[in-house]
Amino acid sequence: MRDVQNELDTRNIPVDMVGVRSVTYPIVVLDRENEHQSTVGTFNIYVDLPKDFRGTHMSRFVEVLDSHNKKITPRNMSHILDDVRNLLKAAVAHLEVEFPYFLRKRAPVSFIGSYSSYRCKFIATKNEHFDFILGVRVPVMTVCPCSREISQRGAHNQRAEAYVQLRMKGLVWIEEIVEIVEGSASSPVYSILKREDEKHVTESSYDRPRFVEDLSREIVLKLEIDDRVSWYKVEVTSMESIHNHEAYACIEKRNVSS
Amino acid sequence: MRDVQNELDTRNIPVDMVGVRSVTYPIVVLDRENEHQSTVGTFNIYVDLPKDFRGTHMSRFVEVLDSHNKKITPRNMSHILDDVRNLLKAAVAHLEVEFPYFLRKRAPVSFIGSYSSYRCKFIATKNEHFDFILGVRVPVMTVCPCSREISQRGAHNQRAEAYVQLRMKGLVWIEEIVEIVEGSASSPVYSILKREDEKHVTESSYDRPRFVEDLSREIVLKLEIDDRVSWYKVEVTSMESIHNHEAYACIEKRNVSS
Amino acid sequence: MRDVQNELDTRNIPVDMVGVRSVTYPIVVLDRENEHQSTVGTFNIYVDLPKDFRGTHMSRFVEVLDSHNKKITPRNMSHILDDVRNLLKAAVAHLEVEFPYFLRKRAPVSFIGSYSSYRCKFIATKNEHFDFILGVRVPVMTVCPCSREISQRGAHNQRAEAYVQLRMKGLVWIEEIVEIVEGSASSPVYSILKREDEKHVTESSYDRPRFVEDLSREIVLKLEIDDRVSWYKVEVTSMESIHNHEAYACIEKRNVSS
Amino acid sequence: MRDVQNELDTRNIPVDMVGVRSVTYPIVVLDRENEHQSTVGTFNIYVDLPKDFRGTHMSRFVEVLDSHNKKITPRNMSHILDDVRNLLKAAVAHLEVEFPYFLRKRAPVSFIGSYSSYRCKFIATKNEHFDFILGVRVPVMTVCPCSREISQRGAHNQRAEAYVQLRMKGLVWIEEIVEIVEGSASSPVYSILKREDEKHVTESSYDRPRFVEDLSREIVLKLEIDDRVSWYKVEVTSMESIHNHEAYACIEKRNVSS
Repeated sequence: MRDVQNELDTRNIPVDMVGVRSVTYPIVVLDRENEHQSTVGTFNIYVDLPKDFRGTHMSRFVEVLDSHNKKITPRNMSHILDDVRNLLKAAVAHLEVEFPYFLRKRAPVSFIGSYSSYRCKFIATKNEHFDFILGVRVPVMTVCPCSREISQRGAHNQRAEAYVQLRMKGLVWIEEIVEIVEGSASSPVYSILKREDEKHVTESSYDRPRFVEDLSREIVLKLEIDDRVSWYKVEVTSMESIHNHEAYACIEKRNVSS
Repeated sequence: MRDVQNELDTRNIPVDMVGVRSVTYPIVVLDRENEHQSTVGTFNIYVDLPKDFRGTHMSRFVEVLDSHNKKITPRNMSHILDDVRNLLKAAVAHLEVEFPYFLRKRAPVSFIGSYSSYRCKFIATKNEHFDFILGVRVPVMTVCPCSREISQRGAHNQRAEAYVQLRMKGLVWIEEIVEIVEGSASSPVYSILKREDEKHVTESSYDRPRFVEDLSREIVLKLEIDDRVSWYKVEVTSMESIHNHEAYACIEKRNVSS
Repeated sequence: MRDVQNELDTRNIPVDMVGVRSVTYPIVVLDRENEHQSTVGTFNIYVDLPKDFRGTHMSRFVEVLDSHNKKITPRNMSHILDDVRNLLKAAVAHLEVEFPYFLRKRAPVSFIGSYSSYRCKFIATKNEHFDFILGVRVPVMTVCPCSREISQRGAHNQRAEAYVQLRMKGLVWIEEIVEIVEGSASSPVYSILKREDEKHVTESSYDRPRFVEDLSREIVLKLEIDDRVSWYKVEVTSMESIHNHEAYACIEKRNVSS
Repeated sequence: MRDVQNELDTRNIPVDMVGVRSVTYPIVVLDRENEHQSTVGTFNIYVDLPKDFRGTHMSRFVEVLDSHNKKITPRNMSHILDDVRNLLKAAVAHLEVEFPYFLRKRAPVSFIGSYSSYRCKFIATKNEHFDFILGVRVPVMTVCPCSREISQRGAHNQRAEAYVQLRMKGLVWIEEIVEIVEGSASSPVYSILKREDEKHVTESSYDRPRFVEDLSREIVLKLEIDDRVSWYKVEVTSMESIHNHEAYACIEKRNVSS
């Protein structure tokens, strides 16, 4: 049977990235409390394609993914990318996977427990070097400092999301990023709040107003003093309660000292 | 050329609705202030297919749509559905179109003007009878009455959306539904708010706290006394600032008196 | 602390449904092969609210959900809804949960195994009666019969999705609905296909052309003769490769014989 | 009234980008045939914020946007960004706007006319220099060369989308990018196709099979010889009819010769 993909391409144009997108697959990730957590990953996997070949072999991406038995850790992603490079004879392999990650959290006063979900992302690239980015989206509450200051009563507030991406020299847990963001916001959000909790969240958030600029800076202050973090990008998006649009702030570390 | 769609089907199963979905088309709708407004519609158009035919003729749906020169009004939709029924020899024709609709609005204190956008929907069905539903999504602000009551300072609030659907005996403008919803919420939202406006929105919304239950009931109170409204469905969804999920309330008129 | 929700409401308007939406929670569902499967659910949970009460107690929905230890089965959903009704003193409780469900599937010729994902939905309502709907979205391939017939070579084809919803008198597995749909389409889709598989899928699908009308009718033929099925709604949406819009067909069983 | 945003910030962290997101606004863009076209834009507008200031003034972004009377052209975007920089005392201003753009297109054999919609994007940044990127998403049809080659009959095909982004030295119309992409694919897609057109599209696309790699390379071949194009990024995503995931290829010009 002819191998059309393997034929010589004379157009003289290398393809930077080629592969599969939006492959939904069951995965198991590391969990600080419980060792492992079963969840659902959505994968993009690519390689480079040299100018001389007409096409890549798309089936091999999912074959490699399937051969690793659902396990998705930073270390394992390096092995997956090695396998992808070998099987596809590629110089560079790239993998992105997004997944919901659950943490058990307690309400601040009643201590009632419930799960909070955080959308996480691993972004890995391997040529000679292995590059790994951890991304975590943390929903929080922000109270507007301007609204609080100028108003005689109340202050507009809303759900916001901080999306933190890190490159690391030492392991940083998803749980730690969640703690950094929740400790920097006006308040964490919770899946269950009894009345005593709601009173606490309302009052304590009113006492810690945060612009999107404030929240992004507070997060950066903590990342800057963490030796394990070699690069970060912090994006905060706030679903303004007084507008039908979002407020946004972004800070990215420029000089990567690794 | 064989007409496969037109062939006899012996499976003895009528198809309730068959047609095209997500057709994006430029449209012009009625505007109370400016007579007409150009916008972008996303259409679903269906007919019934009797048990004896294998398929419908999909190209004819867009042909009819195109022949009406972008004009989308309640009256015109009746004509479009007549044309669809005739061209496709169908007993029933159904059309849904969603579009963003813009209104010029002034900030409450500074009176600075800006556009607000509202996602609207027309849902029409024609057999012997013509049925028409107008749907309007209105973003607003809700302040939580419980949070305000139990807290010494502040009150959690958030953006919410009321989705109002109406059947009418007399014309109700999109603009009127917007007014009803915005007048029922803790506050309208705005595209531009200067500081004096933000103070006003913060304080006045604090003085008018609304659960999703309250907002849906307040809207219903106004629809109930409007002679032009023969049926309504009111849904309120609030993007809770203290949770990572939504609160929701729904009230539908049961006895349609027409 | 005042219980604002519990206060008397004098507006005289019952709320049909009120509750929480888009609560993401880890769940475990039944799996025909492996007994259980861990996945991620997105929940909407509602109750009715009598005219005399101002609000429902939103925290209790997630408390009930959390108390059931992730287990989501038809039987368990009945218990969850009982708990919701009791805790919220409601006449009616309603729960919807969507989740990705994974099946191990083999390529048709090479027999290489991989996971396929299917978005599923449970929709349950309980008053005196317990009503349960199972929904399964099955991606498949459809080859256009008209294109094949009128063209000298080739035939346009595309990914389509059948969304099947059932009410049952006896248990129907998700796996069985997948088999019914995949056996009715031009071809199943697969996560991994080697070249010999791709040849098989291409040729066999060319030999089984299906309009959206055909696919919906073929599925209905099988559901009609299944004694366990008391009601069905079958919707097929095809991402037409020759258009930038979708084709759609829908058949719903009218007379529920239970 | 206190100007909280204007207060001194001592955290010593500049914010790279801060502003508003997802502002929906009516716009008018240039149209090669008809001079102007009314459509709907979704805007993100940002500035940099020096380390010494606590916050930006969010209302001014929409004020500037509103003051330009809906007109969105490359030249006008430069003026908008100047106004944003001046009003917000910023060194850098950034604006992105996405909008659907409609072209009148004729079916290939019957010549029946209809509108096709293309999602377009302008991305502009201004400091001392004005940088402008035009992005156009063009839906097309791709027939798989491997499937065609190895199969005795048929060939799997699907809707794909090419997303082309350009930096220009001379004006390139949206219309020209559409022509380049549609001329490079297996076939354009159309809103209306009669049977004679469907036969033509089926057969002609079968005669021009294209992998995502082929389509991206064919587009690049044409951009490479166009003197007006100083940089490009071409991404092709194909909604594989035989899989439940996408195939993807990306080529970006590395050496910008301007």
